[in-house]
Amino acid sequence: MEFLELVKKRKSTRKYAKEPVPDEAIEKCLEAARLAPSACNSQPWKFIVVKQQQLRERVVRECFNGVYAINSFVKKANVLIVVVRQKSNYTSSLGGKLREVDFGLIDIGIACDHLTLQAEEMGIGSCWIGWFNEKALKKILDVSKKDKIDIVLSLGYPEEDYIKPKKRKTLEETREYIK
Amino acid sequence: MEFLELVKKRKSTRKYAKEPVPDEAIEKCLEAARLAPSACNSQPWKFIVVKQQQLRERVVRECFNGVYAINSFVKKANVLIVVVRQKSNYTSSLGGKLREVDFGLIDIGIACDHLTLQAEEMGIGSCWIGWFNEKALKKILDVSKKDKIDIVLSLGYPEEDYIKPKKRKTLEETREYIK
Repeated sequence: MEFLELVKKRKSTRKYAKEPVPDEAIEKCLEAARLAPSACNSQPWKFIVVKQQQLRERVVRECFNGVYAINSFVKKANVLIVVVRQKSNYTSSLGGKLREVDFGLIDIGIACDHLTLQAEEMGIGSCWIGWFNEKALKKILDVSKKDKIDIVLSLGYPEEDYIKPKKRKTLEETREYIK
Repeated sequence: MEFLELVKKRKSTRKYAKEPVPDEAIEKCLEAARLAPSACNSQPWKFIVVKQQQLRERVVRECFNGVYAINSFVKKANVLIVVVRQKSNYTSSLGGKLREVDFGLIDIGIACDHLTLQAEEMGIGSCWIGWFNEKALKKILDVSKKDKIDIVLSLGYPEEDYIKPKKRKTLEETREYIK
């Protein structure tokens, strides 16, 4: 599939089929994320794969409740990938401080983009979730207080497959040529 | 090309051939970036394409000098894409404030990842640059003070084509399974 086709095909999937995602497919997604570029090759990430049903249910119960219940669709996802952002390496941190840019967040965007596009290529749907109870999630997964969980990715085969037209600004609104 | 092959093939290109990058190729890269997902579909980006040689030279002279001269390789790049980050929309900003995550930076990571992978598929090399004189660049391109330029992407056909093995943490260091 051409890259642009893959980009057009991928969308947020919130309704998942019961069919389990094979471990080899998860590994391939993680491999695509692992190879992502990052500022000063910092690779400030760790991916925690949550598959086991009881644990997933606990995560949903404790991290997607109350004000976070809007994302409780994740309970039907086959796999949750909890994206842990670690401290960037010295060069990236120092550069980021001087430039007032947290390059680690850009890195997380790149790695998760790789992961979700790799999933899409294999017909696996995904959703980026940024709205959950991070404190509860860190406690359940024993994630260090020094680390941050910005994003959880849900994965699973979609209940139905279709191309959803994208609502985006036009190309004219998006770019400016200075020749 | 399979997605994982594309990921493996793409690397930072800092040595560019003189051959110009056609406008249609740039447009395709911008289209891939435009279609990127973003938190709450905020699309907090604008891409300024700097092609004209004199302007490029001025940008190099004023924004990649002094402590920023380490990235003066950009003067040989055929095209510079200046990535302007705008304020995220209300939902993304509010969610980000409550979650203490600047989702706009993650969005920039995704969009630029799309752009550079699309370039790679067409044999066009790219480099992410985060170290430049942002203030000078905003002045030259008349970018609003409210906006931020985190990243400049350089594009151009590579002087030589080769696969560079990636230095990355192993898969074991990158992920943890909780089944």
